[in-house]
Amino acid sequence: MKVSVGISSRHLHVTKQHLEYLFGEGYKLEIDRPINQIGQFASKSFVTLKTENGLIEHVRILGPVRPYTQIEISKTDAYKLKINPPVRMSGDIKGSEPITLIGPKGTLNLNEGCIIADRHIHMLPKQAIMYGFTNDEEVMVKVPGEKACIMDCVKIRVADNSYFEMHIDNDDANANLIKNGDLLDIIKKK
Amino acid sequence: MKVSVGISSRHLHVTKQHLEYLFGEGYKLEIDRPINQIGQFASKSFVTLKTENGLIEHVRILGPVRPYTQIEISKTDAYKLKINPPVRMSGDIKGSEPITLIGPKGTLNLNEGCIIADRHIHMLPKQAIMYGFTNDEEVMVKVPGEKACIMDCVKIRVADNSYFEMHIDNDDANANLIKNGDLLDIIKKK
Repeated sequence: MKVSVGISSRHLHVTKQHLEYLFGEGYKLEIDRPINQIGQFASKSFVTLKTENGLIEHVRILGPVRPYTQIEISKTDAYKLKINPPVRMSGDIKGSEPITLIGPKGTLNLNEGCIIADRHIHMLPKQAIMYGFTNDEEVMVKVPGEKACIMDCVKIRVADNSYFEMHIDNDDANANLIKNGDLLDIIKKK
Repeated sequence: MKVSVGISSRHLHVTKQHLEYLFGEGYKLEIDRPINQIGQFASKSFVTLKTENGLIEHVRILGPVRPYTQIEISKTDAYKLKINPPVRMSGDIKGSEPITLIGPKGTLNLNEGCIIADRHIHMLPKQAIMYGFTNDEEVMVKVPGEKACIMDCVKIRVADNSYFEMHIDNDDANANLIKNGDLLDIIKKK
């Protein structure tokens, strides 16, 4: 079976408290455009990422606010920032890489929160049942073309309000010449 | 069987004529450090890559001079430069992407020469016989780890003066968390 690809550029999710610290009291995220995951959106707000030895400007906040602040970058970004974030699923930030966020009204030194997002496939509970997948199951995904490969250890994420889509970062997309909306084959393991 | 990995950052090879056009008459490449492929070296000379909509500075020339000028960049670089170079094996530059090189003494508009280097494994003729590979054979290469994958369509390049090594670019390395010197398994196809 096939899944369409959504390429995630570097971005972050923030708590309400951190958003106000960075942008000022009462600040609210505005929708620039909706993303495919239901209820989520690319906001009009950006921050700068800072580490001891690097800086990346103009990194977009995705909304709405979340119960945790999480910064998702690629390995290429990590080399630029000279840090070594772990590969993690969204929400699993305990002990992840420290990073500093700079907003127009405040600078926030986080002890953890920066990750490289693991490749994953979102689906609804009813789709998981219909297609025979379980939450956290690892599958393989076949990429055709001149730089063909089979990605292994791709996680299935089953949740309400999901849109059936595979998420990869820019490194995965560029290495394997994948474009937004490409349809790739999911392969069940054993 | 295992092969060690060499990660190729963006770089270029130049003809003697183009080198002198960019750096001045009689200019010679100096060795900064040898690379693993026998007789080849990272030189101390750099150029700027320019396209209609982008610029990348400080791109290293590998020596010695060659019968053709070839610029090898990653897909990430290609997005920065807003061009679409083909995936090619080294030396196969006919009809590849135009690009401009800027040196301290001259600016060179090339009608072709920019490629994304295809993943390949160098080996000596005697190694090819010993291990049972042929020139241009396609193999798969298994990458372990948290972002495990099987790279397909990896080309075997048999030539004298080779050093047994797999060459990938920064996109492949970063997407799959591969480091210089990592040992990967080669898998014969069919």
